[in-house]
This record gives sequence, structure tokens and C-alpha cells, in this order.
Amino acid sequence: MTVLEINTPYREAMINITDKIYDEIKKSGIVDGLCTIFVPHTTAGITINENADPDVKDDIVKGLREMIPNIHFKHMEGNSDAHIKASVIGSSVNLIIDNGRPVLGTWQGIYFCEFDGPRRRKIYINFV
Amino acid sequence: MTVLEINTPYREAMINITDKIYDEIKKSGIVDGLCTIFVPHTTAGITINENADPDVKDDIVKGLREMIPNIHFKHMEGNSDAHIKASVIGSSVNLIIDNGRPVLGTWQGIYFCEFDGPRRRKIYINFV
Amino acid sequence: MTVLEINTPYREAMINITDKIYDEIKKSGIVDGLCTIFVPHTTAGITINENADPDVKDDIVKGLREMIPNIHFKHMEGNSDAHIKASVIGSSVNLIIDNGRPVLGTWQGIYFCEFDGPRRRKIYINFV
Repeated sequence: MTVLEINTPYREAMINITDKIYDEIKKSGIVDGLCTIFVPHTTAGITINENADPDVKDDIVKGLREMIPNIHFKHMEGNSDAHIKASVIGSSVNLIIDNGRPVLGTWQGIYFCEFDGPRRRKIYINFV
Repeated sequence: MTVLEINTPYREAMINITDKIYDEIKKSGIVDGLCTIFVPHTTAGITINENADPDVKDDIVKGLREMIPNIHFKHMEGNSDAHIKASVIGSSVNLIIDNGRPVLGTWQGIYFCEFDGPRRRKIYINFV
Repeated sequence: MTVLEINTPYREAMINITDKIYDEIKKSGIVDGLCTIFVPHTTAGITINENADPDVKDDIVKGLREMIPNIHFKHMEGNSDAHIKASVIGSSVNLIIDNGRPVLGTWQGIYFCEFDGPRRRKIYINFV
């Protein structure tokens, strides 16, 4: 297993980690298999989405923010919205590795999703 | 890795691909392991849900549509709602293969989720 | 593959199954690899979220309930909201196993998400 660390810039942000993941896949020497990228945090997630127009990630952050209802939550830390977003987005993604490369689509990039930053965060990468 | 192609009929649609996936699992000859189904698109996703009453998939499409807030998005293509749905639903599912068969529940089917069609779409299938 | 069974207490509930999953990982004897936990139901899901303050899981249940629009659904069983939540949360999670242990973060626990209980439910666990 490999561990990456990143600093997130704002309370909510989608950080493109595609190049970092490609580097780790290359370093691993894996030719065919499955790469699991896992986020060990409860107010962050990971997703695959458009890597061309940066407006898309801003729209996703904004859309998720508006989707969470403006109701009274019990958790005293005041970040229940971030916990909900983490479960809606999910804590891991799977990449199929074929011939030494992840088979992402033309427009796909891999994003770490920060919902309660800025913080120092970890990303775990595993191959089978 | 195997590639399937499908045509999606509308802007938003859930297409039952369970039989196609079963065929590929059979063809692969895999007995025990993990099957990853990955969608290489940023305005589509994949999910597992009810395969009995077709009303359920229509309700899911409708429910997701209403969940996305009616706000101003920046992305000029005008399909930010589809990108958000793609990340909420997710780009891959895992199937456990046991004794040559995926261990789906009685009511479960596998659905390709189109959020910005109609289009020609790809589905990647991998076994470990 | 291993099968666990649990009873869920209410219509909507997040049940902490972390200890049960740890036990199965220990029993399996797996040292390094990937553990897939799969829910074979269409009105339930599985997620990873905070295991410290129990208010967080109640807030997630409440937040998801409010996110689903109050609209007319077609499915006659009247539980379309539960099917939508199942697809939003997802039917499986991946755990990376490193040195005989799942690499969860400090605050992470594994939760079975019941959206249409109380019922007797199954959980499938697989290792590769």
C-alpha cells in the first residue's frame, strides 16, 4: 500500500490528483489488475469526473452544498453537512489497470473531495 | 478487460445491463473473485437497484433530477446536473463472483445510468 | 465468501458493523489484499463514516431523508425514497487490507444503512 498526502486549500474543494495516481501506478510496475484509492477521512471523499473545464468541479461543489438540507443537525462540531457529502460521494474509487495504465475515459480525472478543510489529508493506494 | 457498448435512449435513463454482465462473467470462465464494472464517462454512472418493478428506475431518475438544486452553474455546456449525478451515483460497482456467478440479491439488477444522452456509451468489465 | 446477517431496528438506521467486519478479516487469515463488503438489497446500502459521535449517523439519516424530494413516485410499494437512498449511498465498500488489518482512518467505522426496515438483512464479504 502507498500513502499520499495533500494539503487542501478551502473548506470545500475538489483537488485533481490524476497525475499523482498515474505516477504511483507507474512506480508500482503493475500491468493488469485493480487499483483501489481509499480516503481515510469522514469529511472527505473521492470521485471521478470531468478534467477538462475546471468550472465542472466548482459546479459539483456548489451543487452538493445546495443539496444538503438547511436543517438542525445534532453533531456539535457543526460539520454534519461534510459527513453527509462524504457518504454521498464515497470513500473509494476503483481503477481498472490494463497494460500498465488506468483505463480512464477521455474526459475523466480523479478528484480528492474536501468537504471540511483546509486540512492535511491522506490518500491510500492499493493494487491487486 | 472487456468492453461493452450500448446506445442510451433519452437524456436520462437507467438501462438494465444485468444479462449482458452475466454473459461476460460466464465467458470469462472466472469461478471466484471480484468483477469491477467501470463507466468511462463523466455524465453517466452505474448502480445496482431493483430489477422487478420498472417504476423503481423511473422514480430514481425523477428523484435524482429533483434533488439537484435549480441554481446557476458555471459550466457552459449546460449539463452540470449530469456531472453531479455521475459523482453521486458513482463510476463503478463491484460484484463478488462465487462459484461462477455474481452474488446479487433476489431483487438486484445492474443499471447503466445515463444522465446526458442519448449517446453511444462504453462499459469496461474487469476480473481479479 | 462469508455471509453475515443482522436485524435492523427501525425504518431508517445506520448500524455500526465495524467489529463484525474486523472479526471476519481476522478469521480469513488474509494479510494483504482487498476486502469487498456487498449488500444484496435494493433498499439498503453500506458506507464508511464517523464512529466517534453517534449523533453523526443520526444526522446522516436525517439529511438523506430531507434530500429526497417530496414528489409523486410511481412505485406502488411506497418506498421509492429508500431505493434512491440505496443508489446514492451505494451497495458496496472496499477496504484495503495491509498487514492483516483494514486500513481505516482513526474516525472511520463501517455502517450498514437501512432505509426500509426493520428487516433481517444480509451482508456479503469477499477477499482478493
